[in-house]
Amino acid sequence: MPQRLKLILAYYGAGFAGWQSQSHRNTVQDHLERAFRRVSGRQVRVHGAGRTDAGVHALGQCAHVDLVDRRLSAARWTSALNALLPPLIRVLRCYYVSATFHARFSAKGKVYRYRIWSAPILPPLEVNRAWHISAPLDFDILQALAEKLVGTHDFAGFAANRGNCELNTIRTIRSIHLHRKGPCIAIDFDGDGFLYKMVRLMVGSMVQGALGKLTVDEIAARLASIRFSGARLAAPPEGLFLARVRY
Amino acid sequence: MPQRLKLILAYYGAGFAGWQSQSHRNTVQDHLERAFRRVSGRQVRVHGAGRTDAGVHALGQCAHVDLVDRRLSAARWTSALNALLPPLIRVLRCYYVSATFHARFSAKGKVYRYRIWSAPILPPLEVNRAWHISAPLDFDILQALAEKLVGTHDFAGFAANRGNCELNTIRTIRSIHLHRKGPCIAIDFDGDGFLYKMVRLMVGSMVQGALGKLTVDEIAARLASIRFSGARLAAPPEGLFLARVRY
Repeated sequence: MPQRLKLILAYYGAGFAGWQSQSHRNTVQDHLERAFRRVSGRQVRVHGAGRTDAGVHALGQCAHVDLVDRRLSAARWTSALNALLPPLIRVLRCYYVSATFHARFSAKGKVYRYRIWSAPILPPLEVNRAWHISAPLDFDILQALAEKLVGTHDFAGFAANRGNCELNTIRTIRSIHLHRKGPCIAIDFDGDGFLYKMVRLMVGSMVQGALGKLTVDEIAARLASIRFSGARLAAPPEGLFLARVRY
Repeated sequence: MPQRLKLILAYYGAGFAGWQSQSHRNTVQDHLERAFRRVSGRQVRVHGAGRTDAGVHALGQCAHVDLVDRRLSAARWTSALNALLPPLIRVLRCYYVSATFHARFSAKGKVYRYRIWSAPILPPLEVNRAWHISAPLDFDILQALAEKLVGTHDFAGFAANRGNCELNTIRTIRSIHLHRKGPCIAIDFDGDGFLYKMVRLMVGSMVQGALGKLTVDEIAARLASIRFSGARLAAPPEGLFLARVRY
C-alpha cells in the first residue's frame, strides 16, 4: 500500500532552470526525483504545489511523493535527501500524510514575496535576490495600487499565456502587504491561487505606476479588461520568492 | 600632478579568488585594475586596505589609486567603473583625497563581521554567506570567549603564517559584539589591525569552545602562548565580511 510523503522545500532559484522537469535535468523536480531514486531504488514522481520559473526562489515550496512503504521515517527521508541534493535545494521537513492530500489540488492558497531594491547601486550580496530599480519609486503609489489589486477580480489582464488557455481567470487576493526597510521594499501577496506570471505582472505594473509611467487609473483599467493586449512589464524572476503554500 | 582617488568597495567573495592580483586575473584587484585601464587608457595600480582571501566578502573594503588628472569627477568614476565591473563587485563611493592618504598605511582599524548559522539545516539563501554549524552552540561560552579576546594581546597564537614572518604580533581588539537573531549569530570584531587569518582562527576557537571541544582556559592559554604549535581550526572564509576600514 503506497505511502504518501509531504515535503516542505526551499531552493535558490538562480541555480536551476525552474521547478519543472526538463531534458537537461537541471531543475528542482529533476534533482528531487534523482535523489528519491537513489535512496529508494525506484523511479518516484514528485508532485509540486506549483511550478516556479527559472530564477524564482522558494522558502516554502510544497510537494508530495508516493512511496511503496514506510521503511524510512519522515526525519530519515529529510536527512537522506539533503545528503544527496545540491546545497541550493533543501528539504526543510517531511511528513507522512493521508492519500487524500495532494500538493497541488489540496492547496488553499499561496503566499509570495517580491523584493525590490530601490537605490542607485545594487549591493553584490543582493544580486539574484531582488529587482534593482535605480530610479526613485513613489511608495504611496505602490501602496495605493496594492489596495486596488486586493479582492476577487478577473486577473486575465495580469496573466501570461502558457500555451494552454486558462478557462477561469478569476482569483482572490486576500492581502498585499508592503514592507520597507532602507532601500529594500518587500511586497507580500497572499491569494487563493495565482495565474501564470501573475505576481510578476502585478509587480511590473505597480512599479510602472510608482515610476510615474502609468497612472493608477490605467492600471485599474488593466484589471477590468478581460483580454488585455497592450505591452506589459513582468518583474524579473530573481525578486520572486514562493514563501509558503496554505492547506 | 597625480590625483589620488579613494574607493569604497563591496564584493561577494564566492565569485573571486580573493583580493590580491593573480596570474588567472579573477581577483577583485585584477577586475578593478582592468576597469581603470579601460576608462583611463593607462595601467593603474589599485592599493587595497588589506587582502581578503578567496570566499571572504566585503561590505566596505577601501582602496586608492593615483590618476594622472581629474578629468572625471569622483561620481563619474563610480558609475564608469560599475558599468565595467561584474555585478558582484560594486564601487559604492569615490572621493579625491590628499596624497598623504594611503588605503593601507592610513588605516586606524578595521571592523569584521563573522556570521554563523546554528541550525540543523542551512537555508539555500545562506549558502556561501555563513558558517553552517548543525550541532548546538553554547552562546554564553561564545560571549565569555569574546570578552577574553578583547584588549591588547600578542595574537601570535591566532595568526597563520603567510610565508613572511610578522615581527610584531601585538594587536588591540577594541570590541567584540555578538548578535543573535534566530539561528543566525553575527560576531562583530573592531580592532586596530588583524594578523593573517586572525578573525577566522579566533572564531574557530570560539566555536570549539561553544561546542565543548575546548575549555575557556585552553583558549586563554592559546592567547598567552607566543608560538602556539597545536592544531587550530580556522572558521571557513564564506562567513567572513570585511565591514569597514576606519581612518
